[in-house]
Amino acid sequence: MASSPISPLAPVAFPVLSDVAGLRFATVCAGIKYQGRADLMLAEFVPGTTLAGVFTRSLTASAPVLKCREHLPGGKARALVVNSGNANAFTGRRGEETVDHILRAVAHVLGCDVEEVFSASTGVIGEPLPHTLVSDALPGMKAQLGTADWRAAAKAIMTTDTYPKGASRTAQIGGVGVVINAIAKGSGMIAPDMATMLAFVVTDAAIPADVLQVMLADGVDKSFNAITVDSDTSTSDTLMLFATAQAGNAMPHAADDPALADFRRALNEVLLDLAHQVVRDGEGATKFVQITVTGADHDQAAKRIAFSIANSPLVKTAIAGEDANWGRIVMAVGKSGERIDRDKLDIRIGGVQVTYGMRVEGYDEAPVAAHMKGQDIVIEVGVGVGDGAATVWTCDLTHGYISINADYRT
Amino acid sequence: MASSPISPLAPVAFPVLSDVAGLRFATVCAGIKYQGRADLMLAEFVPGTTLAGVFTRSLTASAPVLKCREHLPGGKARALVVNSGNANAFTGRRGEETVDHILRAVAHVLGCDVEEVFSASTGVIGEPLPHTLVSDALPGMKAQLGTADWRAAAKAIMTTDTYPKGASRTAQIGGVGVVINAIAKGSGMIAPDMATMLAFVVTDAAIPADVLQVMLADGVDKSFNAITVDSDTSTSDTLMLFATAQAGNAMPHAADDPALADFRRALNEVLLDLAHQVVRDGEGATKFVQITVTGADHDQAAKRIAFSIANSPLVKTAIAGEDANWGRIVMAVGKSGERIDRDKLDIRIGGVQVTYGMRVEGYDEAPVAAHMKGQDIVIEVGVGVGDGAATVWTCDLTHGYISINADYRT
Repeated sequence: MASSPISPLAPVAFPVLSDVAGLRFATVCAGIKYQGRADLMLAEFVPGTTLAGVFTRSLTASAPVLKCREHLPGGKARALVVNSGNANAFTGRRGEETVDHILRAVAHVLGCDVEEVFSASTGVIGEPLPHTLVSDALPGMKAQLGTADWRAAAKAIMTTDTYPKGASRTAQIGGVGVVINAIAKGSGMIAPDMATMLAFVVTDAAIPADVLQVMLADGVDKSFNAITVDSDTSTSDTLMLFATAQAGNAMPHAADDPALADFRRALNEVLLDLAHQVVRDGEGATKFVQITVTGADHDQAAKRIAFSIANSPLVKTAIAGEDANWGRIVMAVGKSGERIDRDKLDIRIGGVQVTYGMRVEGYDEAPVAAHMKGQDIVIEVGVGVGDGAATVWTCDLTHGYISINADYRT
Repeated sequence: MASSPISPLAPVAFPVLSDVAGLRFATVCAGIKYQGRADLMLAEFVPGTTLAGVFTRSLTASAPVLKCREHLPGGKARALVVNSGNANAFTGRRGEETVDHILRAVAHVLGCDVEEVFSASTGVIGEPLPHTLVSDALPGMKAQLGTADWRAAAKAIMTTDTYPKGASRTAQIGGVGVVINAIAKGSGMIAPDMATMLAFVVTDAAIPADVLQVMLADGVDKSFNAITVDSDTSTSDTLMLFATAQAGNAMPHAADDPALADFRRALNEVLLDLAHQVVRDGEGATKFVQITVTGADHDQAAKRIAFSIANSPLVKTAIAGEDANWGRIVMAVGKSGERIDRDKLDIRIGGVQVTYGMRVEGYDEAPVAAHMKGQDIVIEVGVGVGDGAATVWTCDLTHGYISINADYRT
């Protein structure tokens, strides 16, 4: 895995992420699976930090996900501990005991309540997590806690990722400047809802937990829940948003408070930025693909049609081959099960209209073929029955995906 | 495409298929797309031949599919014409006119009603079918009509298939022997319901069309609707069953007539045999995979869980890598959306129990690893909540699939 070259779709550099008041980080090589790289990240939040979270809908969710769900209604966070190399998923009761052990150890070291500690794990499924490697590392990590090296934190949570992922935006709440910083990992097993994906967002704004939760759920719908790499859904998907309340803004009390409009804009941008970075690091990806469907019965129908295209192995391999094989798009629309008007089916690739109920008169493939050779592919599909619309993002399906996944564990 | 080697999972030889009284065949190279190989097949049935059919559920179904559906209620067949190289799908009103032109030409040449003529087309989507190539070839084909070279017919309808597919069984109806012969094509774009798949079954039995239809629909549920190669559903899926009524059996009048029990057994065997052959020719396949799910809420839930496993790119690539990565099976069960009991989840690979709620105590990977090296992989999953059961079949996902599909059209 470590030998995979950096994705050709990677951003040119990790962005500059400033400190967030009320947050301290440490990372360490605990030796859980990988050697010679950090695989454990600890974040400490000041008292008064609120949080929100959304998690995988898998019915075989990991032990850390189950425990996060249990602690979430408390609305308070003092610590987050994340390891890579082992997902602690499908490890039975013992896996749950492992999480309890780790959370208790964090609470003890940092002097907080165990209900204020959250964790996430990513890596192989079904192997017992050697939890003493985590708990033994904690005292040393406490000593190292410092202002944030976001890039180091983003690297510590990587598995098959080829680059660390970060994003940052600033916003105003009632005239007070706040910052939103975030890191994520994710590369394969990426599908709604929500990808094998861990993402942690931290802001210095003061926002109550219930308000954060509404904004996070809204933002996810058009970002992390609108991406797919391979249609596989992880047991460990975790997205958490922490607010340290250090910026000094007046506390808003509802998600529709006009004072939050700019914060919401910035949060949505951070989420979409990270979601795109996850797709751009899709295993074996060489093309970043945006698919917009309009004219469906409703927005959810549009999203299902868009995902039917985005998850089609035949569409994805055609894109890998730089082949403007729009017949496969027709096929994928047809299998979605959603209502369409075949005779109004309007397919555009790179802005060039290809079909309207059939191939358009005088279709010139040259500009479309040229578009297919680029890294960013844009597909638009009008299905001609209503006003529903949605955009999703995916990548192509290449030999690289097979190479990475046909021998990941052994 | 022609350069693809024969699938390693192919049967050793095309089976011996006897003549079916009342059926004559001809094949020809019409030059629709391929050069130097037959791409057009004409079958003529004696007057009195009944038929049944099931077709793709795609909402962008091809023009031939739409026309077959229109003619099916008549219950009578005199001719079937099938071309490869062009699917005549998503070709608009012009595509429908093309089918009308071809069916009229067949009716004219053979001297029958146009409503008794059926057609199927397979190949590229969205290109106009050069129908005069078909109609011009028909008079010559009529002159060649003869007792059946089933292998030639099976070869004429191939696209990316690496071998022709045939199956045959005999049965008794009220003490009278009858035969059931069949050919199929299918390799990629194989998914429920029903695969990019054409299959034509012919029997000399005398059976009314409505009775045939019930038996065909039943048989498809556990054969062609229980296979997947890549989760993509074709616009052209067509399965038709013709009965020439030449065997001399007494005409049964209901599908539950006890005299039909043996025929039903033989028909189901033919359908399953062909369905397995389609999977064994899955694009790039190196492993044939049987997945049985038991203990689900009901049979449909079991089938959905089984297909969630069978369609998972991560499961399929692990099998390609001969990796007993059962954690991905856990993931695929979890994402199916069907109810399961995580703590009773029982996974067996090659008959060896791997999990019961977690990895079993003392799990020895050696026999499972040895099983993964074979060509036939058997996965059994018990989900612990009810009596629903289903078996589906698939193949692995390999570099071969990418190579074939990343440059099919160009």
